[in-house]
Amino acid sequence: MAKGRRSTRRGKVTVVGIGPGSIDHMTIRAIREIRAADSIVGFAFYIHQVRSVIRPTAKVYSSGMGHEIDRASLALKLASRGEKVAIVSGGDPGVYGMAGPVIETANKLGVKVDVVVVPGITAATASAATLGAPLMTDFAVISLSDLLVPRNRILERVKAALKGDFVLVLYNPQSRARKEPLRLVHRILMRYRKSSTPVGIVTAYARRGEKTIVTTLERMLDYEIDMASTIIVGNSSTKTFNQKILTPRGYYSRS
Amino acid sequence: MAKGRRSTRRGKVTVVGIGPGSIDHMTIRAIREIRAADSIVGFAFYIHQVRSVIRPTAKVYSSGMGHEIDRASLALKLASRGEKVAIVSGGDPGVYGMAGPVIETANKLGVKVDVVVVPGITAATASAATLGAPLMTDFAVISLSDLLVPRNRILERVKAALKGDFVLVLYNPQSRARKEPLRLVHRILMRYRKSSTPVGIVTAYARRGEKTIVTTLERMLDYEIDMASTIIVGNSSTKTFNQKILTPRGYYSRS
Repeated sequence: MAKGRRSTRRGKVTVVGIGPGSIDHMTIRAIREIRAADSIVGFAFYIHQVRSVIRPTAKVYSSGMGHEIDRASLALKLASRGEKVAIVSGGDPGVYGMAGPVIETANKLGVKVDVVVVPGITAATASAATLGAPLMTDFAVISLSDLLVPRNRILERVKAALKGDFVLVLYNPQSRARKEPLRLVHRILMRYRKSSTPVGIVTAYARRGEKTIVTTLERMLDYEIDMASTIIVGNSSTKTFNQKILTPRGYYSRS
Repeated sequence: MAKGRRSTRRGKVTVVGIGPGSIDHMTIRAIREIRAADSIVGFAFYIHQVRSVIRPTAKVYSSGMGHEIDRASLALKLASRGEKVAIVSGGDPGVYGMAGPVIETANKLGVKVDVVVVPGITAATASAATLGAPLMTDFAVISLSDLLVPRNRILERVKAALKGDFVLVLYNPQSRARKEPLRLVHRILMRYRKSSTPVGIVTAYARRGEKTIVTTLERMLDYEIDMASTIIVGNSSTKTFNQKILTPRGYYSRS
């Protein structure tokens, strides 16, 4: 009887943003969606992060790094059987996260289930919060991962953003195996921005080993930078004081 | 006795991001900080949004639109007397919010209190979530308010972002009194991007009267757009299907 009821229920995939590193930075809605799910699908690292809010009776499908399309396909398959599925996605699912793969895969496979995206705190704003207020003027978010995007396009984007005097937020700045893009970007930054431009490096925000560095463009490569780091590079008006980075929005210059 | 204890306590201002429109999109930490505060300072509209989580014994200082520096000064003054003060800020406090004014004012006044910023869900990611997955590649966030930023600089930024093929997120697109910047930006967009480029307009996310429009660059000005709207303009690879907007990140083109 219970089984019969289940198969007529319309399935649903909820792509849940779990924020930058601890339950503390999850929204009420994100927690509720995970608790309500029949099945949880996700990268093992993120599953671990939300373990304490998963119902003990829920089925958990965790997998290794990468495999985004496999996870999306699995979630859609479970949902097409009538299940309520939550896919957990670090930070915000719409910023280099699982929202795209799920929506694109649903379309490719022609699966007719509801897909809902629940936003989460993304690394740009989490890092900015710990650094002070570097994003108070217009900013550009750029991923330095050249796995899916040609390296030249990344460099062209950096140049365009510098031309617009945007504050830059660099996601996925480097990994053990991929150090070249950050070097190339740094060379461009040094050409177009003052070497004293404030730079913030936030690693493992709200996680064990969290580290915040306030430095300058000239010295930024002296610090440890990895896949858990986010880098914010100030624009022409960004300043540093008391180990905080601020890009003034003009409240004082106006008055 | 209690009074004496209070004055030796070190005060603190916490700038709390309350997210885009409902308690549901607040983080656990944001709610805890508001509950713990002796005093709450904020724009009346945001105070109203979080009313249900404010302790009945807390003092509430609400004020009208604008007045950012007054609010920052008041919060710092209360904190310098030893109070725990929460300033509520819509969305994320670091994205055109109260983080900047508070840190800048603390510096100007030389006030020695701790300032902590608690990130919140910002309009870019909330709007993206309801539209599908438009921000899966690099994007630029631009405010069209010309109150604090010269109009020409806004237009130059838009042009630079178009040159870099960024997805655009436009904050504060227009108000009753300010319609000109959006018209000018639209003219530039039409010159540099295809008129069929997908555009999403999200108004009053997670609030009464929430409205999501999926349209094209050519038709975007036919819709109602106000201060509670966020506009997302796709880049050269953004597509629309089933009333969702997706900028593919390349998972399928790779395989």
